Amino acid sequence: MRKTKIGAVPYVAPIPIVLVGADVDGRPNFATVGDCAVLGIRPPLVVVSLSATHHTTRGVLAHRAFSINVPTESMVALVDHFGVVSGRDVDKALLLPSEPGEVEGVPLAADCPISIECRVRSVVDVEHRRIFIANVVQTHVASNLVREDGGRLCVAPLAEIHPILYALDGGYYGVGAKIGTSHESGRSFIPADPR
Amino acid sequence: MRKTKIGAVPYVAPIPIVLVGADVDGRPNFATVGDCAVLGIRPPLVVVSLSATHHTTRGVLAHRAFSINVPTESMVALVDHFGVVSGRDVDKALLLPSEPGEVEGVPLAADCPISIECRVRSVVDVEHRRIFIANVVQTHVASNLVREDGGRLCVAPLAEIHPILYALDGGYYGVGAKIGTSHESGRSFIPADPR
Repeated sequence: MRKTKIGAVPYVAPIPIVLVGADVDGRPNFATVGDCAVLGIRPPLVVVSLSATHHTTRGVLAHRAFSINVPTESMVALVDHFGVVSGRDVDKALLLPSEPGEVEGVPLAADCPISIECRVRSVVDVEHRRIFIANVVQTHVASNLVREDGGRLCVAPLAEIHPILYALDGGYYGVGAKIGTSHESGRSFIPADPR
Repeated sequence: MRKTKIGAVPYVAPIPIVLVGADVDGRPNFATVGDCAVLGIRPPLVVVSLSATHHTTRGVLAHRAFSINVPTESMVALVDHFGVVSGRDVDKALLLPSEPGEVEGVPLAADCPISIECRVRSVVDVEHRRIFIANVVQTHVASNLVREDGGRLCVAPLAEIHPILYALDGGYYGVGAKIGTSHESGRSFIPADPR
């Protein structure tokens, strides 16, 4: 496959879209963020990268804690709005209802089917970026999306959650068809003749 | 929305699926990874989290560099296979052709439409996890997906790339319909009456 060099662009695709929440001066605030990932399951680790100047960043630094909230397709207008306006200018707590989590300073967005409470364990500063590596403390999932499977709680298939994806083309997207299953799809892998 | 606590589960959704590449003892090797994100555009930053015992991790630590390769839906069997078998037992270089990148020790997967060359700037160790925060050095995109827009190179819409998503339900998924555009969708946001 012929490729063209486009310069140093972090074109990971696709990008999850989440709302990062933290209380700022006692008011819940949320920022729309695509710079977020799972870093491991055991121990449960996540990362979020915020600009030092973001209003939410003040709250994360003050409480050393935050929430990751997974919004749904029906919330795309709010999600985009929350990526454009700052909590300095708009009281986002009036626009997105929330409840306090178990950790002080961590608001959970009521309308998001998944809210993850996180406690910061490391902060890496790169220029104006504050990169927060965090332990997951508790995860709250919409009760209608929780299943019991052999005494263990698990979450409904992704298609029932309707999360939002993002790409550096500036588009928001839904989740498409299921195309495989972990530890099963590989069984049909037939190596090509080595070239 | 009533929620159920499911414990400390990093249920970020969805998760991108990428192939992380590094030369190990002079042979290109690739690991299937969902623990990957953009951390910023300017400066261009990414993160990848690997298990210390992964074969690829040895190469990343040796060269302080790696590639992130975005596979396509048609590669799902190989992608799953590469998440199950180790480069210690299988010579993955025979199964996935690659070319050397600009950075020493960084192989670029020929069949992936996007390959991102990264140089490690920080390593954060958490138990058996090695978390690599890296600068993007160069990005290679399939030439048929590169557009010129006002003298600037950009990448075709996400739907033409056909990347793979993953979720903690163990499923692989394609990208669905476009549901909005950054800095446009929010204009239709009409605040609900404060509750």
